[in-house]
Amino acid sequence: MTNEELTNKTEETQETQDIKTNENTESVEKKEENNVEMEEKKKEKKEVKPTWKYYTYDGSTKTKKLVIDKRGKKYLIAKENKEFGNDLGVANLTDVSEGNVLPTHKGDEFYLVEPTAFDIIKKMKRSVTTLLPKDIGLIIAYCGIENGETVIEAGTGSAGLTMYLSQAVGKEGKVVTYEKRPEFAKIARKNLEIMGSVKLNQPIIGVDEEPVETEPILNEVAESKKVYNVIQKIGDITEGIEEQDVDVIVLDMPDPWNVVPHAKQALNKAKGRIAVYVPYIEQSKKAVEALKENNFLDIITIECILREMDISEKGVRPSTRMIGHTGYLTFARVCPEKLPLNEE
Amino acid sequence: MTNEELTNKTEETQETQDIKTNENTESVEKKEENNVEMEEKKKEKKEVKPTWKYYTYDGSTKTKKLVIDKRGKKYLIAKENKEFGNDLGVANLTDVSEGNVLPTHKGDEFYLVEPTAFDIIKKMKRSVTTLLPKDIGLIIAYCGIENGETVIEAGTGSAGLTMYLSQAVGKEGKVVTYEKRPEFAKIARKNLEIMGSVKLNQPIIGVDEEPVETEPILNEVAESKKVYNVIQKIGDITEGIEEQDVDVIVLDMPDPWNVVPHAKQALNKAKGRIAVYVPYIEQSKKAVEALKENNFLDIITIECILREMDISEKGVRPSTRMIGHTGYLTFARVCPEKLPLNEE
Amino acid sequence: MTNEELTNKTEETQETQDIKTNENTESVEKKEENNVEMEEKKKEKKEVKPTWKYYTYDGSTKTKKLVIDKRGKKYLIAKENKEFGNDLGVANLTDVSEGNVLPTHKGDEFYLVEPTAFDIIKKMKRSVTTLLPKDIGLIIAYCGIENGETVIEAGTGSAGLTMYLSQAVGKEGKVVTYEKRPEFAKIARKNLEIMGSVKLNQPIIGVDEEPVETEPILNEVAESKKVYNVIQKIGDITEGIEEQDVDVIVLDMPDPWNVVPHAKQALNKAKGRIAVYVPYIEQSKKAVEALKENNFLDIITIECILREMDISEKGVRPSTRMIGHTGYLTFARVCPEKLPLNEE
Amino acid sequence: MTNEELTNKTEETQETQDIKTNENTESVEKKEENNVEMEEKKKEKKEVKPTWKYYTYDGSTKTKKLVIDKRGKKYLIAKENKEFGNDLGVANLTDVSEGNVLPTHKGDEFYLVEPTAFDIIKKMKRSVTTLLPKDIGLIIAYCGIENGETVIEAGTGSAGLTMYLSQAVGKEGKVVTYEKRPEFAKIARKNLEIMGSVKLNQPIIGVDEEPVETEPILNEVAESKKVYNVIQKIGDITEGIEEQDVDVIVLDMPDPWNVVPHAKQALNKAKGRIAVYVPYIEQSKKAVEALKENNFLDIITIECILREMDISEKGVRPSTRMIGHTGYLTFARVCPEKLPLNEE
Repeated sequence: MTNEELTNKTEETQETQDIKTNENTESVEKKEENNVEMEEKKKEKKEVKPTWKYYTYDGSTKTKKLVIDKRGKKYLIAKENKEFGNDLGVANLTDVSEGNVLPTHKGDEFYLVEPTAFDIIKKMKRSVTTLLPKDIGLIIAYCGIENGETVIEAGTGSAGLTMYLSQAVGKEGKVVTYEKRPEFAKIARKNLEIMGSVKLNQPIIGVDEEPVETEPILNEVAESKKVYNVIQKIGDITEGIEEQDVDVIVLDMPDPWNVVPHAKQALNKAKGRIAVYVPYIEQSKKAVEALKENNFLDIITIECILREMDISEKGVRPSTRMIGHTGYLTFARVCPEKLPLNEE
Repeated sequence: MTNEELTNKTEETQETQDIKTNENTESVEKKEENNVEMEEKKKEKKEVKPTWKYYTYDGSTKTKKLVIDKRGKKYLIAKENKEFGNDLGVANLTDVSEGNVLPTHKGDEFYLVEPTAFDIIKKMKRSVTTLLPKDIGLIIAYCGIENGETVIEAGTGSAGLTMYLSQAVGKEGKVVTYEKRPEFAKIARKNLEIMGSVKLNQPIIGVDEEPVETEPILNEVAESKKVYNVIQKIGDITEGIEEQDVDVIVLDMPDPWNVVPHAKQALNKAKGRIAVYVPYIEQSKKAVEALKENNFLDIITIECILREMDISEKGVRPSTRMIGHTGYLTFARVCPEKLPLNEE
Repeated sequence: MTNEELTNKTEETQETQDIKTNENTESVEKKEENNVEMEEKKKEKKEVKPTWKYYTYDGSTKTKKLVIDKRGKKYLIAKENKEFGNDLGVANLTDVSEGNVLPTHKGDEFYLVEPTAFDIIKKMKRSVTTLLPKDIGLIIAYCGIENGETVIEAGTGSAGLTMYLSQAVGKEGKVVTYEKRPEFAKIARKNLEIMGSVKLNQPIIGVDEEPVETEPILNEVAESKKVYNVIQKIGDITEGIEEQDVDVIVLDMPDPWNVVPHAKQALNKAKGRIAVYVPYIEQSKKAVEALKENNFLDIITIECILREMDISEKGVRPSTRMIGHTGYLTFARVCPEKLPLNEE
Repeated sequence: MTNEELTNKTEETQETQDIKTNENTESVEKKEENNVEMEEKKKEKKEVKPTWKYYTYDGSTKTKKLVIDKRGKKYLIAKENKEFGNDLGVANLTDVSEGNVLPTHKGDEFYLVEPTAFDIIKKMKRSVTTLLPKDIGLIIAYCGIENGETVIEAGTGSAGLTMYLSQAVGKEGKVVTYEKRPEFAKIARKNLEIMGSVKLNQPIIGVDEEPVETEPILNEVAESKKVYNVIQKIGDITEGIEEQDVDVIVLDMPDPWNVVPHAKQALNKAKGRIAVYVPYIEQSKKAVEALKENNFLDIITIECILREMDISEKGVRPSTRMIGHTGYLTFARVCPEKLPLNEE
């Protein structure tokens, strides 16, 4: 049921909408209102028979597929969907897999591919704005996140970062993500399901829920490849961190300084690292002060100004519009501590 | 023997040296020349007995350790080293592991920790300049590199990016890295050994070498955690890519456009992505043209301007010096293709 | 008549409109449609009597005045206007000058001030996009434009840069501005009139016009302060530059490289400088090559990335939206030449 | 005498030195130590006779000349110097003026030109770091500084900004520059003399000095072109501003917020504007708060990130090294005020 909701929706790229206006985005819902027209389209559609063979792909690890049309528009659609259409026509999705060209009844083409976390972030349902890939990349690179590590994240938000962290630590690793608001955690879970980071309807620690009957898994091969390494928790991380020997803590929350003393306790003394993302410079300053007070090493604050380049036949130039700022990122490493003799 | 060379050296941060001048970096080699002085230090050193217990850590997956002194200076040192010293004193390394505070004979302290890829890139031996973490992060984030994927990289260079890719795809994944120059590949191997991305003296495909007797593995627990998923190859990738069903291809080379047609063949049709890193805008333009000609989708060229912030008691301001430019990054996704019927 | 058109209009900030969407800009024209409502407002308005004295200012050098309301909205209005109003009310403009607070009939306040070139650029009528103040500032600073110098500019465009150049060289200096399209030159003239850079209806060289009866000058004192140092010309500067001993040439046109040989001839050998503004990097490259071929010295190409800061009670951060790129600026100095002996 | 000191010195570009290291700058002083070698050079030099005519220029408004060699190195030299030389040879300066090519005794060439404020800032003697041209340009453009205006500046510093302001307002305008430290004001005066912004040894208000016998003016024509519109004052502007009806106030000092109430009084109500330059963001914030408390309008804070482009045969790319930050600039306009009725 809940799954149904997701599958019949094509979320628009919120980020892009924020920046570019007047983009004529074609809505899938719109199509579905015109059932009559659709029926007619279906009739026509039967005439289109591909003169080529379909490619076989069974490695999908996502619960959704990505359709790209010739104009570059993207649609995140449910695995179960039998057909997909926009103003360029309707295409049959039965018995085809990612990696195929799909003919539409109007003679156009769709490309069916597997979405990456980058695509999902742009298309997923959001409770709040999510970290942009540029900042996620810096977190992974500056923390040097490794396969097999344990990462704590707060807050979960829309789980954009969580998806990436889940892939970065892999099956042998673990991501524990704290979120204060249960309704946000539920939206995040849906996004994590798409990515294969959690099982369908995986319980969220701290949320009492009716057991939900989940959809059968469509593809056994892919299932074995899924990471399923994210644990969602409802809780206020400023009140303490339950986990121990944590490798990396990533904070995307308004008052990260209140977490720093807990982070110091929870982080592995040999390799514990912390990353703090905040929009305002005063927040960075307070975070840096808290890190210094708690003897963190190697404290650095950076900002990434991302420029997109317009490369066309007319010439090359940086794009006219750009995102001026998202946030500041602070990184540090926990300092080894002397263990008192009497503690033995 | 070869290992010896590595272990007795403390490579300086080349990147930092490029930017900051006049930094008084203390050399470990210098110390080793003064054997007489050292002997005296050793005598003094025996007097320093810690009044605390040492922390136990057996999770190290690196072949080197990182020493940080109180001023923030860092030294990448061999696992086997029995002691380490600089102008702040000499500390005993016997029976201590990463995560410990080490007293020096002068009453100062060193912090012994496990290096991350971020630290290793800054300290490792280099054949050429390596991609900076900011650009590596963008590659991982924009490609959406996942656990278990197969990634092709060319050229290997100093293997800074390779280390990160190795961790990003994890034990179930694979990184094949092409390099034209055998001598560069050998330097790269040493860096990959530090990271646990290749076995000690792992053969490089295309290089005939005398078998080398490798050092015994010091720590069995850590050994089991190592990724060992990188394959080094000597070869010119513009002549063709042997691998098939590749998930991601990353090109850091002067003429990436010559690889694009090969990339189109090698990439998995369902999820194949490509990343191209070049310093000059004309190179980006040629790469974009080659990608368009080969029907790649979702082509985007970006640049990351990284700003470091100085946060002190005097106030907050972006740092006065900064790296103005490293390179442009172009990303694209391979387009699904129609398979001819008669191919069956 | 033509003047009438200008005076009864309040041009919106085009630049701001380009960047910020959804801004609820109040139109003055709208007001004028509601004559009935206005009549009622006038009746009410009579009730508002200021309990303060008006400030006297007779230094205005502009043909328009700037009204700023309490929300920071700005309106460029004609000197002759008897009243001005928007949704915050209507204010009487009789017998008040710039520098005054004007009560509206609704109890609100308007601020009546003298516009600067910065304000005029944002509000003026445009034929094409104009150089932004950030780039104009760089041109003035990098060329080191001085009082009394002769500056050639091409093309005139909307005359945003011309206004600034006019002020920079002052009464003893001269700005000759080339424009190929007469209709653009006429729009530019209106903007230059506002600034006091040309006399009302000053002839444009190359445009035959009926003499126009100009409005009487309102303020004799201000008249004496006006610079009136701009000469507008219709012509294609790639065909040659008539002026000699020119101090500075500024090119904002698609093919500046075609002007470089002419610039070399026209520029004063002791201090001739050139500035070239183009949006595409290929254009900069071609301009630099032309400058090198013509032995120009001190060639430098720069770009200004302007960041606006949001400073509020919540904290400080760079603005989320920003202009990513306007153009590249190249500067150079003409090289002294050997004069042949037989030329004497 | 004092002039002598200046004329025999070639100040190096301090800004460039800060950024680029290892630049092999040739010192003129070095040459002068080798008198013997010089004598020999002079003998040789006599052999070099130009086969071309010299260009005549009598428009110089500076007290110094600029020599540029073929490598682009620049030397600011005294008008009276009879010859100039570096490692490329020695050239005769007798009877030649700016705008000429000068043969050296080694067969090389020097270019003798008139320096602009841009050149002088790079070469002048400094008490403190001076505003860079990029920030000076923004001040002129955002304030919309006009010919004939009265500008107040504090502090004078090395007078880099003062030179530009002096040219921007021209002969009919006036720049009053406050400086707390008399020794800085004296260095600033020397720089202002070069530019023709003050008369030689013009008294500084607040400094008692012995009258100095000034050098005779070399060039009567140029003298008439000089602006001479700067007044230097010793004083603490936070204690009050004596001037009234000021058009623009520019503050480059640590505590500009303490000047804001005085600025409000001193600024012309119809067009008074203020610009504040500070390196730290906390300073900007305090300045903005002070401006808001004092009802200033149109408050905006910006930062200019200047990028230099490397354009060579290898391709185009932004320069690797760049200045990451200089300062934040805040601009505002004074708000008209109600004048109390009883004040009449």
